[in-house]
Amino acid sequence: MSTAKAYAAQDKTSPLAPWQFERREPGPHDVVIDIHFCGVCHSDLHQVRDEWGGSIYPMVPGHEIVGKVAAIGASVSKFKVGDTAAVGVMVDSCRTCKNCEKHMEQYCEEGMTGTYNGYERDKKTLTQGGYSSTIVTDERWVYHIAGSLDMAATAPLLCAGITTYSPLRFAGVTKGTRVGIIGLGGLGHMGVKFAVSFGAEVTLISTSPSKQKDAERLGAHHFLLSTDKAAMKKYQGYFDVLLDCVSANHDYGMYLNLLGLEGKLMAVGLPSENPVVSPFALITNRRTITGSMIGGTVETQEMLDYCAAHNIVSDVEVIPVQQINEAFERMLKNDVRYRFVLDMKTL
Amino acid sequence: MSTAKAYAAQDKTSPLAPWQFERREPGPHDVVIDIHFCGVCHSDLHQVRDEWGGSIYPMVPGHEIVGKVAAIGASVSKFKVGDTAAVGVMVDSCRTCKNCEKHMEQYCEEGMTGTYNGYERDKKTLTQGGYSSTIVTDERWVYHIAGSLDMAATAPLLCAGITTYSPLRFAGVTKGTRVGIIGLGGLGHMGVKFAVSFGAEVTLISTSPSKQKDAERLGAHHFLLSTDKAAMKKYQGYFDVLLDCVSANHDYGMYLNLLGLEGKLMAVGLPSENPVVSPFALITNRRTITGSMIGGTVETQEMLDYCAAHNIVSDVEVIPVQQINEAFERMLKNDVRYRFVLDMKTL
Repeated sequence: MSTAKAYAAQDKTSPLAPWQFERREPGPHDVVIDIHFCGVCHSDLHQVRDEWGGSIYPMVPGHEIVGKVAAIGASVSKFKVGDTAAVGVMVDSCRTCKNCEKHMEQYCEEGMTGTYNGYERDKKTLTQGGYSSTIVTDERWVYHIAGSLDMAATAPLLCAGITTYSPLRFAGVTKGTRVGIIGLGGLGHMGVKFAVSFGAEVTLISTSPSKQKDAERLGAHHFLLSTDKAAMKKYQGYFDVLLDCVSANHDYGMYLNLLGLEGKLMAVGLPSENPVVSPFALITNRRTITGSMIGGTVETQEMLDYCAAHNIVSDVEVIPVQQINEAFERMLKNDVRYRFVLDMKTL
Repeated sequence: MSTAKAYAAQDKTSPLAPWQFERREPGPHDVVIDIHFCGVCHSDLHQVRDEWGGSIYPMVPGHEIVGKVAAIGASVSKFKVGDTAAVGVMVDSCRTCKNCEKHMEQYCEEGMTGTYNGYERDKKTLTQGGYSSTIVTDERWVYHIAGSLDMAATAPLLCAGITTYSPLRFAGVTKGTRVGIIGLGGLGHMGVKFAVSFGAEVTLISTSPSKQKDAERLGAHHFLLSTDKAAMKKYQGYFDVLLDCVSANHDYGMYLNLLGLEGKLMAVGLPSENPVVSPFALITNRRTITGSMIGGTVETQEMLDYCAAHNIVSDVEVIPVQQINEAFERMLKNDVRYRFVLDMKTL
């Protein structure tokens, strides 16, 4: 066992505060990572405050983890000490069900093991996330990061990156596909970057006119203000694919109407109230809503390699870990462009 | 012009009653059909009572029309006098948009022309449906019916048939696919027949235990009582495809949970209140909800030919047209197995 320093929530109402806990001794397949940076995901806030229910405390949040390999188990083959490595949203799964066999461990039939706010496969050892000095993870759930990428700006790829990359790929986005990205935040700004990079014709759809300039800077070709009824009508039936990155409460119907024949609304935002769907909007044009959750281990590495090849990272604001509670409040006000990343050396 | 006898609604509260109106003289591409039978669809009732809004009166409902060709225009090539022929839910479209060019006229970008409760392309001539003695329709929207099929039992194929055939095909249902048909009514009973015929392993899902026996008679392999929580839990993640034929108000979430990896909920029922969707249920297993509306002209003929080859028709109760108002009331109580068909010779 080794002691890790961390910032943790002790219950759902207290601010995050310094805490120490024990990480396991590395087993034969484990990689020990000295964490350099950890992204701050909106789901960290949801879980810290128990907004989805079932939160377990003490909780060290953080699942956008990048660092350097400090030690490896005897059977580790993919990593060596000193490698830049990353851990994302999950750290284990049953490994034997048909979904795990397809390397879609996020859909493990027995449930994946979350990087934090979950239990290891023994069902009793709490998992703890990346707002900490180190993490010990089976190498299947550890990813290589190319040396050419900025480490801090890479961290959010582990959640915001794969969460948007995977559904855009699954929807078949390619050259000329008409893609609308709904919402320009941590997820949306990655959605714009990926869709542009895949050759799509990309429109940023937002309730906020102030996002237009940034959307264009990120490569979006068009901007659609969703509160402008005339503009929304003009785009009716226009899109092949919409990536819905909105976690505020909303109705799927108004976006469905923007889809053309066999258009696909890919839902990755997680509003706390269940959205309402108009069946008439669905049956028109044979439209589809598909949900998508992060990506499997193979696809996550594929995405990271793609980012290295195309020099794609997140737009980040690096902050000392001591500012995490303030960062949560700023996130709630959308006052971040587009992801806070904790500099874990400040612990 | 020729005078057609009919049953019509004069407003949204009066019962249907005898009425007469003029059918157009057949143009060069028109087929004149002497109507023998017309199915009674739940959407007839919705529109007669203006439950979807925007109803236009007087209204002659009916879009499951089968009869004999009585005359043809000079340029008609597909039909000759005396042929058994059918008309379904639409009678025209713009014919030039990209969806029409793909023979998916039901998704016409300018809107298809409904068989009734709509306007011809001139935007002023009301269309009138099949609760009438004759209909005059462009041959593109007229279908051949094999002589081997019972005419009355064939009528519901034009709406209930294609509405279930098309999404099951689109979802790729084939030998061994685990299909759940939700709701055993006019749509559901056709869904069971088609899915069984495609070689799927078919489960009928219903709130009513009384449907089990009939489901098995129709060929379903299993029965799942959706009010039985333990049974619903047992089937969690089980299905590849669900066909949601329920027009009563309901939540999509409880059915989504029955879908395995990349499972598809095909929505064809049209509840009057918009269903609620849990995004967590959607992102688990990368599930999909797809809406589907009838089928295009080519696919409708394909379905009718498939039915002839596999001897598939609807289970019907043939009634004289004078019983239509009583039939509406019985439909509301699900007291029909599984489709009323009006014998139009009783007019």
